[in-house]
Amino acid sequence: MSADPRSRAQRRRDTEHRLGHDIDVWVASASADGAPYLVPLSFDWDGEALLIATPTDSPTGRNLAATRSVRLGLGHTRDATMIEGEVEVLEIDALPQERGDRFAAQTGFDPRAGHAVPLVPRHPAPRPGLARGERAARPRADARRPLAGLTPG
Amino acid sequence: MSADPRSRAQRRRDTEHRLGHDIDVWVASASADGAPYLVPLSFDWDGEALLIATPTDSPTGRNLAATRSVRLGLGHTRDATMIEGEVEVLEIDALPQERGDRFAAQTGFDPRAGHAVPLVPRHPAPRPGLARGERAARPRADARRPLAGLTPG
Repeated sequence: MSADPRSRAQRRRDTEHRLGHDIDVWVASASADGAPYLVPLSFDWDGEALLIATPTDSPTGRNLAATRSVRLGLGHTRDATMIEGEVEVLEIDALPQERGDRFAAQTGFDPRAGHAVPLVPRHPAPRPGLARGERAARPRADARRPLAGLTPG
Repeated sequence: MSADPRSRAQRRRDTEHRLGHDIDVWVASASADGAPYLVPLSFDWDGEALLIATPTDSPTGRNLAATRSVRLGLGHTRDATMIEGEVEVLEIDALPQERGDRFAAQTGFDPRAGHAVPLVPRHPAPRPGLARGERAARPRADARRPLAGLTPG
């Protein structure tokens, strides 16, 4: 991890590269009453939405359907890109065939073969604000800013 | 990632090794009303509790103090160990000097130099049930079990 934060343009390029090339993402969700959940899942990014698939009755499936809110971690702890998103739940039958084919090719498994329900965390196209991992690991003590690269709020 | 799930004994050994040797962990928390948060942070494991440090007013700090519940991801997406824990909040002044010294040596930063507040996710000593990452990434469609290696509930 470089000591110098990346420029906004570089963060945007890095985020776009990860969205296009990475296969797995850390998916954090929460129940409506505040129980956190975290699991790594495969994803596909089509340039506008990030598609994941999980059973309706899994903790992640239940949480995302209930709160429609997700926080994603791409990459590794020392070079992470955090993405917050709103979730749109797609029933398996509503998944366009082309989107399903693309997901299967990208992730190596076909969500349509089982009882999976794809969930689409929606967020704007990659923008500088999406990449916030620069100060995340090995936080330094500094009373004037958070010790970790946390987003406000 | 092996196609064969690790034995319980092997998972326990792997978890213990990671707790003793890894520096960073993915920390998932949630607000009381179900907004998920995720950030990578450095940690120290003393054999009984996993210590992290974050400002009182950071999203993670606020969430953990409010819900006392955390879910941690150790390792990488293809070889992950998930840990659920209860959180004990320690004010910075209550951190024993030896514990603070150990944390600083392990993580490379001293939480006592700033306004950090250590938070201790407590959970039992590593046991087989803590390591649940085997089927997490590249889930396979199988109607009889979750597509991802999720814990029940």
